Amino acid sequence: MNGYSQELTTDVFHISTGKMICVLNEVDAHEFGLFLADRVELSYKKKKCVAVVDITKNSVRENYIGLFMEVAQALGVKAKEQICVKPTGPIRSVEYIKKKMRGDKLSEQEIKEIVKDISEERLSEIESVGFVSAVFMRGLDLDETIFMTKALIADGNRMEFSSGTIVDKHSVGGCNGRATMIIVPIVASAGLKMPKTSSRSITSAAGTADSMEVLAPVDLDTKKIKEITEKIGAVICWGGAVDLAPADDKIIKIEHPLSLDPEGQVIASVLAKKASVGSKFVVIDLPVGKNVKIKDKEVALRMAKKFVQVGKEVGMEVEAVITDGEDPSGRAVGPALEAKYALEILEGKRFDNLAQKSCELAGVIFEMVNVAATGKGYDLAYDILHSRKALDKMKQIIKAQGGKILTSEQIPFAEFKYEISATDDGIIEGVNTRQLTNIARIAGAPASKYAGVMLNKIRGDKIKKGELLYTIYAEQKSRLESAREYTEQNDPFEFKKIVLGKIRYDSL
Amino acid sequence: MNGYSQELTTDVFHISTGKMICVLNEVDAHEFGLFLADRVELSYKKKKCVAVVDITKNSVRENYIGLFMEVAQALGVKAKEQICVKPTGPIRSVEYIKKKMRGDKLSEQEIKEIVKDISEERLSEIESVGFVSAVFMRGLDLDETIFMTKALIADGNRMEFSSGTIVDKHSVGGCNGRATMIIVPIVASAGLKMPKTSSRSITSAAGTADSMEVLAPVDLDTKKIKEITEKIGAVICWGGAVDLAPADDKIIKIEHPLSLDPEGQVIASVLAKKASVGSKFVVIDLPVGKNVKIKDKEVALRMAKKFVQVGKEVGMEVEAVITDGEDPSGRAVGPALEAKYALEILEGKRFDNLAQKSCELAGVIFEMVNVAATGKGYDLAYDILHSRKALDKMKQIIKAQGGKILTSEQIPFAEFKYEISATDDGIIEGVNTRQLTNIARIAGAPASKYAGVMLNKIRGDKIKKGELLYTIYAEQKSRLESAREYTEQNDPFEFKKIVLGKIRYDSL
Repeated sequence: MNGYSQELTTDVFHISTGKMICVLNEVDAHEFGLFLADRVELSYKKKKCVAVVDITKNSVRENYIGLFMEVAQALGVKAKEQICVKPTGPIRSVEYIKKKMRGDKLSEQEIKEIVKDISEERLSEIESVGFVSAVFMRGLDLDETIFMTKALIADGNRMEFSSGTIVDKHSVGGCNGRATMIIVPIVASAGLKMPKTSSRSITSAAGTADSMEVLAPVDLDTKKIKEITEKIGAVICWGGAVDLAPADDKIIKIEHPLSLDPEGQVIASVLAKKASVGSKFVVIDLPVGKNVKIKDKEVALRMAKKFVQVGKEVGMEVEAVITDGEDPSGRAVGPALEAKYALEILEGKRFDNLAQKSCELAGVIFEMVNVAATGKGYDLAYDILHSRKALDKMKQIIKAQGGKILTSEQIPFAEFKYEISATDDGIIEGVNTRQLTNIARIAGAPASKYAGVMLNKIRGDKIKKGELLYTIYAEQKSRLESAREYTEQNDPFEFKKIVLGKIRYDSL
Repeated sequence: MNGYSQELTTDVFHISTGKMICVLNEVDAHEFGLFLADRVELSYKKKKCVAVVDITKNSVRENYIGLFMEVAQALGVKAKEQICVKPTGPIRSVEYIKKKMRGDKLSEQEIKEIVKDISEERLSEIESVGFVSAVFMRGLDLDETIFMTKALIADGNRMEFSSGTIVDKHSVGGCNGRATMIIVPIVASAGLKMPKTSSRSITSAAGTADSMEVLAPVDLDTKKIKEITEKIGAVICWGGAVDLAPADDKIIKIEHPLSLDPEGQVIASVLAKKASVGSKFVVIDLPVGKNVKIKDKEVALRMAKKFVQVGKEVGMEVEAVITDGEDPSGRAVGPALEAKYALEILEGKRFDNLAQKSCELAGVIFEMVNVAATGKGYDLAYDILHSRKALDKMKQIIKAQGGKILTSEQIPFAEFKYEISATDDGIIEGVNTRQLTNIARIAGAPASKYAGVMLNKIRGDKIKKGELLYTIYAEQKSRLESAREYTEQNDPFEFKKIVLGKIRYDSL
């Protein structure tokens, strides 16, 4: 506001915070009229940067300014130098965040500016969290979701391919099962290009990136992704290693502690990531079930429509499919177990609900891009899987990414296991995927790659007392024991009961 | 969740953050299944504490844990020691914050837990901001405001006085003018006790604490406040120096960057602060005007009712008064100028709208506690002011706090000044207090104690071309020049115009 500036002596903290932060003594802060999280422009010789202010009583002396590594590097300054400090006053994004908090709709320009300021670290953490909270509580309408998607796309880098049809697939908050590792090789076998960036686990027992990492390195850079995709049609890599959407990555980080996942933001985030790898045709899988993220078919339908509409606005053809998320996909839970299981399907050793889902989704893609006639997509996918063409393609992908594990048999089981058997006869009415995830995580997944759970029985199976229900695997004995203890109170299996309750005199 | 723990080697950062933060390498974080802002329990020998996790690529090596000073001190640990690290899993407060975000009402117990976790640094900044944002967007209803007030009171310390009637006064987002420095000595002269904690300026040109500091030290501790109040009936000190309501102080800090001031939170904050100094009778002043915080009489009335109701629930008698905040109170803007002006009123050299307001508010207090009969409060206050008893009391207060400035004449004007005169004849229709504040701040207030603005003319005054309107004071020539430049585009004076617009053929 007032153009007042002053020179302070630098004090460099050799710590990276991932943010642009400087620290002032409270006396100097008062002198400048600065409060926690206000912004200052710092200049040293010909370099300038903006940093967010932290205030301290003791850590920085009067007339000094503490700089964390990012700021020191941006200015190219060492300790005990004089730098010029000038309050910048509020930035416009803060006004827009307040506007959203009040419940008003944001314009395209306003959303663009907020995203740019988040990406370039001009907004403090407090302000960014305010924004994410506002989006969670007020929601983004269709227009705002489109603006957000465009802003996220504009913020990041965009991969370009010289030729070919670029397709992609994304599953929103699904259950376990590595459909991606089956769909990608099927689709690439048909001559389509699928540069698949996937995530590591956040709350699940394994993300696709965690499972794929059992077979091959997944931290590919942009150049490598492009090169391999051009050559053999696909990669399966970790999106976190590619700096495709910096604002989106930052937003996701601050959403995590409060598990904020506002619908509009999820849609924008997914589609922006797809656009950044150049996808033109995208299938969105929306599993619905009581133990997955989307519990309600109506919600899935609403999201499906939004995905399609927003996709159209940003130049992508999107088809959304609502799938049954009630049961686990496949029988494996945990990075290595799921990788092994997916390879077994590609090798033709298994065909179950996971294989079927994979063929159905690949089929949708085939029909979208006219590789198969309407109604014939599934058959083509099934044929590719059955003929082992998909397996060959998967081996090419693994090799291209630098991996050496090419068959399911090369993947060992973890050293320690515990088998849980039925204590009664019965029919299995359901398997709680949430509980399975918890057991696998307690056993060490996903950091412990070989930890997890293998199901021996699934919904509908008739079982007899003493028959094996599932096996827990762990790499450390203590973790196996913790997981076993957990199952005592948390049985993932539900049995069909005829007698639903007993009414006795003393319970009246 | 999983009871998994591991030993890591400490690396101590000699920086205080005011928070309990530890830093893990991203590899270890992944191993633990920890994300940014998750919590861990740390233990070393017999000491334990909970810290919020920050994650780094380079600043902390694998198998090490970086501890900021607060955490190192809590554990009594130095660098290169082994400490045990164990993820705590989510805390219940986070669930309650999500609940509020969804728009549900919180129970007394839930609010209590959130406040406790904020106070004791168990909530990360992201989570705390989420809470404050939720309160801003969803509001607190009357019950929740009562719960919040009780929780803030329970969180802090409470001052107890052996005898006497403890009264207090608070003004919500008012305009300039140091009514407090006149009311406190008037009230104490009548034998009431008023241990007044006041704030420094946030967005204004001076807070009461900034002005009082021109006369005497204001950073008194609890013991000193009690001692002086017991002896002479009052203090006027800085609330920030007293650790009376730690959770409230933390909430206010994170509210600042986004200027969040949800009504319920403001009410809870004010009343909790009053309760913490043992106040039993409180007058709340709610100025209404287009340039102050409350712009609407309806809002003031709603807040007034809430203040009274919440007060009753926490055992305080509250009377709220709605006052005219359209004009500046008095003619001074800036710490020293306002202090000088207040002393001049106490010395009987001036009597204007500030003096009148002070007597009216003191009168309300007198009638509340039956020191004056109904309708006679103002007269008693006026008599005390007029008889110079209030001046004597103010001198006692200044001396007791260790000050030496006892008369208005001892306060000098700043070295540099600039006088602004009328460029036309006219009648002053209004003075924009917001603009006055900006001019005073650009001139250096409040850090520059002697900087500010003195008005020579006020609303209703007839003026002639060339007559002095106001004077800007500054301690640095450059700041004076910046303030002068600002006034060129931002004239705080509005003149009555007879011709409101011209209609000409070419404007049709």
